[in-house]
Amino acid sequence: VDPAKGARIGGMIAMGCSGTNAYRYGTIKAHVLSLTLVLADGTVVKTRNRPRKSSAGYDLTNLIVGSEGTLALVTEAILKITPLPKNPQVGLAVFASMDDGVAVAIAIMKSGMQLEALELVDGDCMQCINHSKLASDVFEERPTLFLKFAGSAQGVKEQVSFVQGLCEERGVTSCEFTGDKHRMDAIWDARKCLGNALATMKKHDSDLVITTDAAVPVSKLARLVEGSREIVKEQAGEQGWWSGSVGHVGDGNVHTAIVCPQSAKAEVEQLLAKIQRLALELEGTITGEHGIGLKLRDLLNEEVGTEGVDAMRKIKFALDPKGILNPDKVVRLEAGV
Amino acid sequence: VDPAKGARIGGMIAMGCSGTNAYRYGTIKAHVLSLTLVLADGTVVKTRNRPRKSSAGYDLTNLIVGSEGTLALVTEAILKITPLPKNPQVGLAVFASMDDGVAVAIAIMKSGMQLEALELVDGDCMQCINHSKLASDVFEERPTLFLKFAGSAQGVKEQVSFVQGLCEERGVTSCEFTGDKHRMDAIWDARKCLGNALATMKKHDSDLVITTDAAVPVSKLARLVEGSREIVKEQAGEQGWWSGSVGHVGDGNVHTAIVCPQSAKAEVEQLLAKIQRLALELEGTITGEHGIGLKLRDLLNEEVGTEGVDAMRKIKFALDPKGILNPDKVVRLEAGV
Repeated sequence: VDPAKGARIGGMIAMGCSGTNAYRYGTIKAHVLSLTLVLADGTVVKTRNRPRKSSAGYDLTNLIVGSEGTLALVTEAILKITPLPKNPQVGLAVFASMDDGVAVAIAIMKSGMQLEALELVDGDCMQCINHSKLASDVFEERPTLFLKFAGSAQGVKEQVSFVQGLCEERGVTSCEFTGDKHRMDAIWDARKCLGNALATMKKHDSDLVITTDAAVPVSKLARLVEGSREIVKEQAGEQGWWSGSVGHVGDGNVHTAIVCPQSAKAEVEQLLAKIQRLALELEGTITGEHGIGLKLRDLLNEEVGTEGVDAMRKIKFALDPKGILNPDKVVRLEAGV
Repeated sequence: VDPAKGARIGGMIAMGCSGTNAYRYGTIKAHVLSLTLVLADGTVVKTRNRPRKSSAGYDLTNLIVGSEGTLALVTEAILKITPLPKNPQVGLAVFASMDDGVAVAIAIMKSGMQLEALELVDGDCMQCINHSKLASDVFEERPTLFLKFAGSAQGVKEQVSFVQGLCEERGVTSCEFTGDKHRMDAIWDARKCLGNALATMKKHDSDLVITTDAAVPVSKLARLVEGSREIVKEQAGEQGWWSGSVGHVGDGNVHTAIVCPQSAKAEVEQLLAKIQRLALELEGTITGEHGIGLKLRDLLNEEVGTEGVDAMRKIKFALDPKGILNPDKVVRLEAGV
């Protein structure tokens, strides 16, 4: 699934995690075949056996994945593995604007061509990567598409040539495709270090890094990227806060990050709530892969309605009648509080 | 998803359906983005918006898909669509034994090469297709792999050549790959007519067609195919019942069918239960895509344990406390009955 560095299997299952491989291989949900659970009353349940597919009763596995520890303890997981991709290549395409990067990403998806990964990093985040010195090379500080290809030898060549054509149509300012192991690692490590690089934008140790996790249908991706930027840039710019965004664009999932003083926490959270509401307007979600926890419970009501949250609460109490498992996370134990 | 002819969206969602496209594109679960539900108390719930991925609360969507109408009425579904495959080709490979067909299917999967479809039909079912006259052509009555390819032009050529090589290694007796629309349709229609063709093997109108739906991990597929054949052939052969099997081998899912007089119903169901238990021994499921209904409730206890069924029952009563929605299907309303 390839989430940010430091993720562990247990947490990935608890949060319904994803990452740069999810666009091609699905989120952790697509990889969990079966779970062993301890329910609140101590009962041990194995959710299913390990065939690729099953219609045997209710889907307990997918109910538990992403339930953030509120429905059961997971003590064992059977994961599906995938053969290693053949003939890998990595691409790096730099654009004058985020719009161009989004347009290329959407054209790739509409073509039906299945790449291995499709990530879009804005100029601010590229600058952050350079500033952090966590990457092994220095990159242009402009909107950049990171791409991965794999498949049969000729198939990969055709994919690369097709994508290169799309990039050129959108006036790509520089473009590189490589199958060299060393260079592929250098490019991909730059994308992967971003999670840790954000912290290096703090002016003071006590500064906060606050991030959104909105995801929208791919047809609305351009509006999410543009809208998030408008919402953040105005206020963050005035206040001198650093901000940037990075998208798992193949999944319509965009993280906008702000680095700000602790005193600005409430203000920044309000700002980010505007982005989450924009995602809802665009028929999207407030959280593509990070989960609800405590902070997003009110917005969850806006996303699935109080009726949806009530249904979730009924399931919570069915499996955990005393509310002892990670209580009050995801859904509040009491309705209307 | 491409299930047997006659399936409708509502039924496909209720049963967690799949078909010949599931190996490449996933079961109906991978295609349902969101559902509108009417719960037992009349509450209307929309399970989620329509981004590709979400971590927003419990996964109500996947809980309802495959719940066979027992948890909620589905009144609306938002489905994900997929660009049409490019450069399609269809392959037909005839083998001396089912073992050879299974070996080729497994070698394809282990290679990581992603075909569009991978179906294995035994000699008896090929004979049934010819006998039914439902196909537009006549085919060899031996174990046959039906394959579909798509992708970039050169990529498809490489796939076909790779698969042809694997088939030859296993001594394929005849082998055809075609991109001709007319011939592709003729071959694929032969596979698709099988569901209806089975009924033409009845000797009397009152005869029954009874089918299993076992699915196992792909590594155990050969043992399921071989074991099912042993279980059925001995007894069916003695009794003069027709039997045959067809596998969505890319998903490890095999249907074994028997056509028998009504008087033999109980006996045949016992026979098929042996195959279902074999699937459980092989860490598989009693039902890959047809669901539990009334008949498989006892075996569901063997698959997920009474603890698993109890957990499902708790969820049933959480959402339908009076047990009014398709009562006693999937799980009995009363435990231990």
